[in-house]
Amino acid sequence: MRILFKNAKILDLENGLLINGAVEIENEIITNVGEFNLSPNYDREIDCLGNILMPGFVNTHCHTPMTLLRSFKDDATLNEWLFDNILPAEGKLSPSDVYWGQYLGIMESVRAGITTFEEGYFHNPAVCKAIEKSGIRARIGLGPAMRKMDITNIEYMGNEAKIIKNNSLIKPVCFVHSIYTINQQAIEESIEFTNQANMPLSIHLAETEKEVLGCKKERNKTPVEYLNELGFFNKQCLCYHSIHLNDSDMNILKEKNVSVTTCPSSNIKLASGIAPIYKLQQKGINITIGTDGVASNNSLDMFKEMFLVATLSKVSINRTDVVSALDVLKMATINGAKALDFNSGEIKAGKQADIILIDINQPHYYPQDNLISHLVYAGKSSDVYLTMVNGKILYENGKYNIGETPIDIYNNCNEIRKKLKNS
Amino acid sequence: MRILFKNAKILDLENGLLINGAVEIENEIITNVGEFNLSPNYDREIDCLGNILMPGFVNTHCHTPMTLLRSFKDDATLNEWLFDNILPAEGKLSPSDVYWGQYLGIMESVRAGITTFEEGYFHNPAVCKAIEKSGIRARIGLGPAMRKMDITNIEYMGNEAKIIKNNSLIKPVCFVHSIYTINQQAIEESIEFTNQANMPLSIHLAETEKEVLGCKKERNKTPVEYLNELGFFNKQCLCYHSIHLNDSDMNILKEKNVSVTTCPSSNIKLASGIAPIYKLQQKGINITIGTDGVASNNSLDMFKEMFLVATLSKVSINRTDVVSALDVLKMATINGAKALDFNSGEIKAGKQADIILIDINQPHYYPQDNLISHLVYAGKSSDVYLTMVNGKILYENGKYNIGETPIDIYNNCNEIRKKLKNS
Repeated sequence: MRILFKNAKILDLENGLLINGAVEIENEIITNVGEFNLSPNYDREIDCLGNILMPGFVNTHCHTPMTLLRSFKDDATLNEWLFDNILPAEGKLSPSDVYWGQYLGIMESVRAGITTFEEGYFHNPAVCKAIEKSGIRARIGLGPAMRKMDITNIEYMGNEAKIIKNNSLIKPVCFVHSIYTINQQAIEESIEFTNQANMPLSIHLAETEKEVLGCKKERNKTPVEYLNELGFFNKQCLCYHSIHLNDSDMNILKEKNVSVTTCPSSNIKLASGIAPIYKLQQKGINITIGTDGVASNNSLDMFKEMFLVATLSKVSINRTDVVSALDVLKMATINGAKALDFNSGEIKAGKQADIILIDINQPHYYPQDNLISHLVYAGKSSDVYLTMVNGKILYENGKYNIGETPIDIYNNCNEIRKKLKNS
Repeated sequence: MRILFKNAKILDLENGLLINGAVEIENEIITNVGEFNLSPNYDREIDCLGNILMPGFVNTHCHTPMTLLRSFKDDATLNEWLFDNILPAEGKLSPSDVYWGQYLGIMESVRAGITTFEEGYFHNPAVCKAIEKSGIRARIGLGPAMRKMDITNIEYMGNEAKIIKNNSLIKPVCFVHSIYTINQQAIEESIEFTNQANMPLSIHLAETEKEVLGCKKERNKTPVEYLNELGFFNKQCLCYHSIHLNDSDMNILKEKNVSVTTCPSSNIKLASGIAPIYKLQQKGINITIGTDGVASNNSLDMFKEMFLVATLSKVSINRTDVVSALDVLKMATINGAKALDFNSGEIKAGKQADIILIDINQPHYYPQDNLISHLVYAGKSSDVYLTMVNGKILYENGKYNIGETPIDIYNNCNEIRKKLKNS
């Protein structure tokens, strides 16, 4: 299967430029970019009409089936939201519910140009089934996921790892929920498991001030110091949120080559705080962007997150000249691919063909000048005209090609929501 | 001309509900809402297919022709942005340039469901020409607009007032730019003018900490105290931004029945701060929402602003249970209409027909439950399917009916931008 995108403005993240030209795909790989000798026959030629071709977004933190809980309880106290609403509802979810919730999230993701995400949920066989069937790329968290589970042990994780095929579209990661939900023994078991399985680790880290204060009180250490002493960062590691960090914490993360995921919309809606993005940049830490779950967000929209990363970074330190549009575009694409260890995140020959086409023939892209800035400060997820993952078009101009139909996804999710509300 | 919207979910702001039913329009007025006896013949019947019908957004602070300067200079220091780029470029704008910039903003506005805005720019004859021709509703600022102008005097404002017809679609407001750009004599002249002309006043107020500190240093008063002593608030008054207010300032604004406009995306991008929305609510002050100009924003998108008002209000005071979705929807509609003194902002019999239709048949509106929360936390401006102002449809499903064509607007704005960059 050979596909050609022609007449495109191709985003070159390395040089911060848009290059006029074409992109050639052979099966799942990008084979040519820019100006090159076209083949006499392609299976499909797509005329981009001067629109922007860019790498798909890599959403490095999501609990996708929480689409089922979109606006389930907003504008409430954190306790009321989490303990009286979200957790009880999640306790009722069957594997089939999770499958449909996962699918709604995948549908929303491909519509919004997200080609890869990191998943942290439960009922992983159902999660994997939806992801595999849809054709999207994901790293799936296994292990001590959402709460203090009695199922936290190496045997369980080993069994889950067998479910998750380690192929080019799906990879496993050991997902340790957090230091305040998973006890030290389970964290140590997880590290031991990843040593044996040669698997990376992910964790919610320093999301709230409460977490940091609690850790300091209990252990006289910051969460970063605590995990570092346990050897958590000796593996390839991704930390979600990472808001409440001191200078020494950041030095440890840099030294250990840890990537962080910032989730600004969730962080401001849940009043967790604003991540120190500029300082993390100064330390040279790999920063990526995640949406978090839709119950606290409430959409899977990397354009919204990009705008927030760029602007919250400015207001939080009273400087307008930090965290540029190009910086943020890298965080949302190539930095995420690096963190999840996928060979994607940029449009270059040899990379996996995870590509999106952005329709810039809309008023918010005019005047058509400084388009990289427009993408971050004026762009919307609805600007995505086409989403390709691994060389396969999963969304194009209102049409989905993800293995389940919108009507089935919508109807099932509406029914599940009714069940959650009435039970 | 009689139009019927049927099979709609109609937003009832007063009760925080969506009501199934129809809305009848006769010429420019809403005549029936909900369940009523349908007329045997309408000029047009629009089947809403169960989608949401809501009042159009009232954007209470904009410098619309600044669409020409979208992404003209981002991620720079404030001084570099304003003095080296924005102000010199604005100095080069001809009336014709302003006309096209105004049109691009109107096009973007109607696409995004904005049916009314408050304008503060210069070359007002060109501004008015575009607004009148397009059919959108606006209150237009006249007077000492963008800088310390030698043209600031009552005679000038009187001439401008004659240009701005005081009809149902366009009204004048005396726009005093700010206390740091307009000297005391000119502010006093403006107040005197509004007394004679029976006209309301608008001003940028307490936008930055610098403004407040400067005023205190110079006058030993806060900006609010200073203006209050001048009698500024004795007229109907709207204050833009209003971030850096103390408790006593807020009491004055409440006592004087002043409305405020919050512009969160501009405020965080320009690192001005986060407005004290919850406190202003507690005082009972009428809070409205504005986009500000596109040079500091960078789009005319009230969905983006609504999300930011709700979430920044939470993170800034570390509480998740304040400033609800419904509160924010009111700010973006009925509160704005009140502040600008238009008989619109809600879908009720007798109100002017400023109505938008929201397409909720998209993944980010599923599960279809708690739709009011979805609108604010997951909604996007691209969800707007139809925009009606004063009974006339200005935008519908990709088609504009605003007096100029998209191609002419785009081409002219691109040419003007080239001129600004190369001169």
